[in-house]
This record gives sequence, C-alpha cells and structure tokens, in this order.
Amino acid sequence: MSAPLSGQAAPLRLGIAGLGTVGIGTVKIIQKHAAMLAARAGRPVTISAVSARDKRKNRDADLSTYAWEDEAVALAQRDDIDVFVELIGGDEGIARDAVTAALKAGKDVVTANKALLAIHGQELAELAEAQGRVIRFEAAVAGGIPVIKAMTESLAGNQIRRVMGVMNGTCNYILTRMENAGLPYETVFEEARQLGYLEADPTLDVGGIDASHKLAILAAIAFGTRPAFSDVEIEGIERVSIDDIRRAADMGYRIKLLGVAQMTGRGLEQRMSPCLVPADSPLGQLQGGTNMVVIEGDSVGQIVLRGAGAGEGPTASAVMSDVIEIARGVRMPSFGQPATELIQPQAARTAVPAAYYLRLTLADKPGALAKVASVLGDAGISIDRMRQYGHSSGEAPVLIVTHKTTPDAIDHAISVLPKTGVITGEPVELRIEEV
Amino acid sequence: MSAPLSGQAAPLRLGIAGLGTVGIGTVKIIQKHAAMLAARAGRPVTISAVSARDKRKNRDADLSTYAWEDEAVALAQRDDIDVFVELIGGDEGIARDAVTAALKAGKDVVTANKALLAIHGQELAELAEAQGRVIRFEAAVAGGIPVIKAMTESLAGNQIRRVMGVMNGTCNYILTRMENAGLPYETVFEEARQLGYLEADPTLDVGGIDASHKLAILAAIAFGTRPAFSDVEIEGIERVSIDDIRRAADMGYRIKLLGVAQMTGRGLEQRMSPCLVPADSPLGQLQGGTNMVVIEGDSVGQIVLRGAGAGEGPTASAVMSDVIEIARGVRMPSFGQPATELIQPQAARTAVPAAYYLRLTLADKPGALAKVASVLGDAGISIDRMRQYGHSSGEAPVLIVTHKTTPDAIDHAISVLPKTGVITGEPVELRIEEV
Repeated sequence: MSAPLSGQAAPLRLGIAGLGTVGIGTVKIIQKHAAMLAARAGRPVTISAVSARDKRKNRDADLSTYAWEDEAVALAQRDDIDVFVELIGGDEGIARDAVTAALKAGKDVVTANKALLAIHGQELAELAEAQGRVIRFEAAVAGGIPVIKAMTESLAGNQIRRVMGVMNGTCNYILTRMENAGLPYETVFEEARQLGYLEADPTLDVGGIDASHKLAILAAIAFGTRPAFSDVEIEGIERVSIDDIRRAADMGYRIKLLGVAQMTGRGLEQRMSPCLVPADSPLGQLQGGTNMVVIEGDSVGQIVLRGAGAGEGPTASAVMSDVIEIARGVRMPSFGQPATELIQPQAARTAVPAAYYLRLTLADKPGALAKVASVLGDAGISIDRMRQYGHSSGEAPVLIVTHKTTPDAIDHAISVLPKTGVITGEPVELRIEEV
Repeated sequence: MSAPLSGQAAPLRLGIAGLGTVGIGTVKIIQKHAAMLAARAGRPVTISAVSARDKRKNRDADLSTYAWEDEAVALAQRDDIDVFVELIGGDEGIARDAVTAALKAGKDVVTANKALLAIHGQELAELAEAQGRVIRFEAAVAGGIPVIKAMTESLAGNQIRRVMGVMNGTCNYILTRMENAGLPYETVFEEARQLGYLEADPTLDVGGIDASHKLAILAAIAFGTRPAFSDVEIEGIERVSIDDIRRAADMGYRIKLLGVAQMTGRGLEQRMSPCLVPADSPLGQLQGGTNMVVIEGDSVGQIVLRGAGAGEGPTASAVMSDVIEIARGVRMPSFGQPATELIQPQAARTAVPAAYYLRLTLADKPGALAKVASVLGDAGISIDRMRQYGHSSGEAPVLIVTHKTTPDAIDHAISVLPKTGVITGEPVELRIEEV
C-alpha cells in the first residue's frame, strides 16, 4: 500500500486561521497527540503558521514555534502549508476570501464554517473540484458527531428518506432548562446570554438560523442537491412558552427545535421549527446542549447519532477527522458526488401530513367547544385527543392533538378560529413530528 | 481530481460469496440503485459472479446475469472481479480460505464476518497490507451502524477512553421481552428460537460470543492493539432472571448484555457481561433488536450511535459503504493503522471500580442482615442503597446497591457470604456500568 501505510511520508502542514475555542482546541490535539496522529495518519501532522485578529491576546496554547500571519488570506497562500484550516466563521468577508484564496493557491481546506458552506458551498465545492482540491467540513454540523461522514460515506448505499436533528445546543439548553426549572423563555434566554451560550447575534441561535445552515448542508448530501439554505422554512424558539412546554409534557411530548429535510414528489421540504416529539423517543430524551441527528435510509432504516454539538474538544475532534483524512490521501467530493452534478432542488413548502398540537383559550361561552370542533371538522381535521383545563378567570385553556392532517388544513383552521368569537388570544399550533 | 470525481471510470466488479440474507440484500441494492451508486462512487458498481452452497435454491433476486461458482475460493480468484465480498460466515473453513485466496490473488475484500476478523484479523490485515490490498468490515460490527468508520476515521484525533455497546440484537430482544412481558428466560429463549432470531448454535448469541467478537474488533481499533478475542471476559445472559430484571427496574436500572473495552494502567480490559445501566440512559432506553455503541474520546467526549444491528437492509447497507469506499479509491489500513504496528495488548482482568447490584436471600434468622453488612464492610464495600422485600416463606429477598468498589472485593464478599449461614441460595451480583 502507498503513502498512508508508511511512517516515512512527508508531514502534512497546516495553516490555522482563527484562534478561538476551536482553533486552540485543534492546536492542542496536534501538540498533545503528535505520535498517535502520525501512526494513524501515516505521516506527521504539523502546523506551519497561524493567524488571528489579535496576536497579543493571551491564548491557552504555546504558538511560539509557528509563523504568524496577520491576514488570513496571506496565511492561505503560504508555500509552507498544504491544508488551510478555516476557523474564523461568517459567511462573507475574511472567511470566504481566505477559503477562496486557499483553493486557488492549490491548498486543501478544512472548515467548521456552517454559514459559509450553507450559503456558498456550491461555488466553493465547484472551485475545489476544478482545482483538484478538497474542502471538508465535518465540524460544521453537530460538532463532534460524525454526521457528514456518516451521510457521505457510511450511508452512500442508501436512498435517504429523511434527515432530521436537534442541531443547536443553545436552543436545546434553553428548552430543557425551561421545562426542568419551570422558567419562562425570557428568563432562561437571559441566563444563556450570561453563561456565554449565545452567539453575538442571538437570533442566529434562537431564531433557528444556525441550525438551518446545518440542515441545508445535510439536505444537499442526502438528496444530491445544491445547498439551498434560503429555501429552509425557519421558525425559532422565541414563541415557545413555558405553558406549551408543560401542556406538551402532560400529553407525553417534549418540544424541540427540530430540523427536518425530506424529498417529496413535489420537491425538497426543509423546515426548522419547534416541534413536539414523544418524550420517550431518543430525540425527546435529549437534554441540555447535546445534539442528535436522525438519518433514515431505504436499506439501513433509522440511524441515530448523538453527542456534543459544540465546544472546544468536540469541534476540534471533527476538524482533526478531516485533517487526518487528507493526510491519509482520502479525496472525496464535498457533498458526496461532484458538485457540478448536484441538481438545483425544487423548494416545496411543507405538505407532508403530521399530527398537530393546538392550544386555544376558550371564552366562557356556551357551545364554545362545539364551535371549535366544527371549525376543525370543516377543515377536514379530526381530533385524536382533547383536554380542557379548569379555569377560574372565565377563560379555559384547551389542548387538542389532531390526527394526521396537512399544514394547509391547520393554517386554514387557525385563520378561521378567531372569527368564531369563542376563543381569546392567539391559537398556538405546533407540529408533532413522527420520529 | 482523479477517478473518484469522474463518471467515466471503469466499473468496480464484485464477486459475492454467500447468498443468504445479507448477500441477497447487497445484490438488491446494487440492482436497484445502480445510477445513484455510480454517481456517488464515481464509477459503476457491478457484480461479475456469485457463489453459494446451493445453486438451485430459490432466492429473492435475479442472479441470472452473473457467473456462478460452486466454490468460493474459485470465485475469489476470478480475473473478472476486483473485490471479493465474503458473506459466508464462520471463522474457519471456506470463509477464511476464500478471503486468504482473494487477498493473495490481489483482490480487495469486504466482509461481514465478525468471527473471522476477531480471531484471524491480525493475520488477514497483515496479508492485505503486504499485498497492497484492503480488507474492510463495517458490516461485521453492529449491522448498519457506521461504528468501524466512526472509530477508524471520525474519531482518529482522539485518544479513546472507553468503548462499549449493546451489540447482539437477539440478547437485547430477549432481555427487553422478559421485562415487558414478565416472562422467564427459558420461555423467551424458546420464543426467540421459533422466531428464527437465534444462530444455529444459540450460545453464539446468548453466551455473549458473537457480541465479544465485535468488542474485540472495536478494541483493536480503539487502542491500536492486535485483536484479542480470547482475552475477553465473557458471560452470557443465561443466568439473568426475571427476578433480577424486576428488582433492577425497581431501583431505576435495566439489565443489558454490555460489552466494555478500556485501556488501563495494568492493561486492556475487555468484558462482555450482563450489566445494570440507568433506565433513562440511552443504553437503558434501548428496546428490542436495536444496537448501540458508545465511544468516549478525550476530545469528543461521548458519542452514541444507534441503529439496527442486523437484518438484510442494515447489514447490506454497511457492506455497500465499504464497497463504495473501495470504488472511490479510498484505501485505509484495516484497524486504522498498519497491522504490523499494532501492539500485542496485555490482557487485564476487570479492575476498574464500579457500583454493584447484589441480590441475596436472607434466612429468617435474627441478626441476618447485620451479618451480611458486616461481611461487606470487612471487604471494604460500602452500601449505597438497600431494599428488603416482604416475605411469607421465611426467606427475605434483599437488594443492595453498593458504592463503587472493585470486582475483587465483590468476589471476595460473594465467596464469604455463604459461610455466614444466614443466606440461602446463590447470591447474584451484577456490575452497574457507569454510562
């Protein structure tokens, strides 16, 4: 066997741009495990140079033996690096410029940048392949969970039916904490901010955008389509109330920010939204910042992958997975097949039927419930379970779990319900995803 | 980029030996998904020839366009195959002969044969590497779950701390069914036999041998050691009683046939035994024939992989994963580093401390419990929780959950307890694995 099996081969030389948590985590692994990495990769893995915004910042690793570049683009083009490791983040600006420069300079690229891949993945994959280079991004989705590799390689013999996941640890932390401590969204959001769990722009997390970047990447691999982030139907967790969390628990469910992608006869459905899942399912059991991805293939059935979705060690572990693959000489198209062969997906609004959870507040009027039931019946929605709670204020909370119905039918019913005059406040509807 | 990105490359030609469930499942995937496979592999994947014991047997796939060989060894040496796919099974005889012949004839090998790999993996990996060939075996461990790839590639940047798993679906089916239906072992064993869930030699399943083959393979990858199946401490599920399942449930645990491998200062511990795990942990939640592997790395933390551990589709999916990798030109040493560099592990008897579950039956004598407590105390074992059940027969069942202690201390206490004259019957001890 060739290079990968020999210990004599030339080192693989990295340039690491971005020395935050993940960058420093990557440096630490390379420093701590040099011999183990060389044995596994078949050649030493070394760092030639690094770059970051502030050279003088105190960092938790000795960088003194590496060359320093102030500019990531300059780092990307250095003659003494084979692989450009982009850990800067952001879908525009330096990250995009430096990755492009690296590929044009004939370097392979490893990145943890989900926004960059979700938005510019197609153009970057095409550039990489035209240059005979690879761009790898295991760390971009679900931290240390090897989901990119599982989808691209392990399940390559499967037609993928559906891929879904809880892929933003901060949102799952917030929802779990709300339930466990009985606290309202605003309080826990503030806690999360103070704990440093939120991005500088928190809507990336709680607005579902970060998780949607990841979903768009997974959908591209799953269905052989160009990444189509702008087609994801996104709803964040801001409107999830402690009331709904409690009521859902009463009915045996938990609320998760769940991403789901599936190919249907009408096109590619991609949605990120708070959904109910059975409390005793693997997704329902997921607590705190842990991530989970569920992949359904026509041969393999359902595969569930669970692990830390963020953090220094887990994300650096995923970066190293890609680095070692390149050191071993493994070269693979970014999305599992040549980028030029990916097809432009037809975006489809969610139409796959599901059960729904509805929470309404009934005015204390005779026949109120009958009017609600009649609106649902007219919309073709049948009721699986209903629960009316006691009330002292003259307003009665009512929970309804429907049988499977279409999103259109639910939307229609929700638009008609206020016109009955028997409900107060906004009706809440949440999809119950079958897991 | 080279061949993997081109659709023009020559087909990868398979010879498939063994046309049972998995063999036919593999044929079906190749027939059904030819275009998808070619797109993902960068070249067509075709079947040149097949072999099995009985040509005339009615099979659930059209094999008429493939050449037929009566002898697997002859198939392995055919000029018109690139990859020999061994789905015969068994650690000796035809499977071993044919795999050896294939490697010597310059073919790559894909196999689902856990016994062969666990027992002769070292010699076969060395032969493959000497011949410049690969032998891949994703399907040998945990069916469709991509655990070989996860360990060898995704977690290659981690020092593995512990790997464990529920890797025999039949045993998990039996234990789950005992709990859910409240049936004794013998009854459920007989059910499983009639459902066709058991191997021809059922001790392979219920004796823990099949799962231990898998554990030995995982340990080799995890710790860079030669596969050492004969060093696994094996105990099957035959002595798990419905009583213990019920009592464990009372205390918040479930009993699983759990394999655990970890490297300690004294050597490599590998054990397969019925263990208690928390009922609400991912392992505890595992029902029926599903498998789960838990991998702990120094950077990634804990990764959990869950899926079908057997069956036509899932196992064939894993076979195809390996086939596609070979088609893509990916070449990797079998155990994650060159076989000649794997070290011979020092086998260590389990010494890592754990809490233990003890079930004793006390004779109805004054001071009986005090005597038991004193034996445990003398052995340095402290009690976390104790529960004595009501009794009418003059014999009182007592459950004890200890604090963490060593297996040696437990063994000592178990050997001394009968000498107190206050217990009747055999004491039962089960390890409570920290998950």
